[in-house]
Amino acid sequence: MIPTIELAAVAASALYGILRGVRNGFDVVGIFSVAAATAFGGGTLRDLFLDRRPLFWVERESLLWMVLGLSVIGAIVPRRLARIEPLLIWPDAIGLGLFSVAGTAVALQSGMTPLIAAVMGVITGTFGGVICDVIFNETPSLFRTTPLCATCALLGSVVYLAMAALEVPVTVSQPVATAA
Amino acid sequence: MIPTIELAAVAASALYGILRGVRNGFDVVGIFSVAAATAFGGGTLRDLFLDRRPLFWVERESLLWMVLGLSVIGAIVPRRLARIEPLLIWPDAIGLGLFSVAGTAVALQSGMTPLIAAVMGVITGTFGGVICDVIFNETPSLFRTTPLCATCALLGSVVYLAMAALEVPVTVSQPVATAA
Amino acid sequence: MIPTIELAAVAASALYGILRGVRNGFDVVGIFSVAAATAFGGGTLRDLFLDRRPLFWVERESLLWMVLGLSVIGAIVPRRLARIEPLLIWPDAIGLGLFSVAGTAVALQSGMTPLIAAVMGVITGTFGGVICDVIFNETPSLFRTTPLCATCALLGSVVYLAMAALEVPVTVSQPVATAA
Repeated sequence: MIPTIELAAVAASALYGILRGVRNGFDVVGIFSVAAATAFGGGTLRDLFLDRRPLFWVERESLLWMVLGLSVIGAIVPRRLARIEPLLIWPDAIGLGLFSVAGTAVALQSGMTPLIAAVMGVITGTFGGVICDVIFNETPSLFRTTPLCATCALLGSVVYLAMAALEVPVTVSQPVATAA
Repeated sequence: MIPTIELAAVAASALYGILRGVRNGFDVVGIFSVAAATAFGGGTLRDLFLDRRPLFWVERESLLWMVLGLSVIGAIVPRRLARIEPLLIWPDAIGLGLFSVAGTAVALQSGMTPLIAAVMGVITGTFGGVICDVIFNETPSLFRTTPLCATCALLGSVVYLAMAALEVPVTVSQPVATAA
Repeated sequence: MIPTIELAAVAASALYGILRGVRNGFDVVGIFSVAAATAFGGGTLRDLFLDRRPLFWVERESLLWMVLGLSVIGAIVPRRLARIEPLLIWPDAIGLGLFSVAGTAVALQSGMTPLIAAVMGVITGTFGGVICDVIFNETPSLFRTTPLCATCALLGSVVYLAMAALEVPVTVSQPVATAA
């Protein structure tokens, strides 16, 4: 279940990074850099903190190829992408929810306590977006949106933990936590 | 001795992060995020560099609960905290000195040479504040205060190292180095 | 071969950090902090990602002493350094090329696939400059130069990989890749 969630989270976050790179007139390598930092930043930090090696995107190289493919498409047809710019908030929110659940799940599997697992979930969910904001030097999102998003991510983690404690089957609990 | 120093350093740094979060109108999760990043950032980087796992705040989960408690208090009574804003420089300076000493001590224990230990001490002392500045996108502190603070942190580390070389008992040398 | 390349890359990147620190009126510890972050940032991230410990600057402490020496010289004779400010782009470009090649080589040695090795090379080459830009809160370089530089770094990595695949002797291929 976790691999599927991670795949969707990486795709959503990469799309978010690509859209912002396109909007700022980056070339294909610049777009790929931003997309990869946004998509892999949170999970990489979680893996470093939990000492899981190889990193999740080194272990599943297909994720890296997918981000590379999406970036090339983004660089080739920037105008079509620009039209969906108003939708930019959705990939971010979806990636956030999915990554928070995946991060919490991975931390629980590594034998962490619920509090640590929730913190790891929030880190996994929010850090990619924080990197993206730092790269683009944009204050507003960090001052206003991120704390709100962090609240959402925490909610997702807590819902997931509550269901984990009640031994709800994982295939049911993960979609519900993401929705929350 | 190191655990006591770390406890005080975490409390001081968390307070610094909370005050800045409150001043910027963050919600409780936002305040907790900033406080945790400021309090655990430097020590986490040191632990990653020295390959010490679990990280110090995963090993001593009580630190995380303390930061969480302080953040909740900060979110509930923001006005009272706003009054002590002029004192904001003190938690920062105390956290810096304490973390530099703790970082140097941990690096020496891990068998590092004095130069590497001093560098690890400075990293442990300054990185939390740097993260905090990057989050709030504030230039002045980075341009002016941080180098000065880094100098203070280095002084603390060097004083500690000098005393370690002379085999001064640790319980004496650590408070002195922090004062310096 | 890799140690020689790393030595030159560290010297070039440290010089770049020192020049920017001097221009902003930092004291000697501030200059050293910026120089060390710029010179060791990319390689440190690569070592963390590949789980190589001790870090390359802990293993070869002479690199740290060299950066320290250069920083002290920079702090003593800032006016002479200010004159070569227009040349600031060169240490950056040279450090970038050298680090990309060294990063790709180290990743290949660690048994990574070509794509992962190229990504590690680009990270090693560009991350020091990104840290430097984030510290100085300068947007233009991040928005314009870095993506271009990332493209150069990628070219260097790909050229190196192509020659590695063809079993060109390493002593020939590394200078060529750096030039590219």
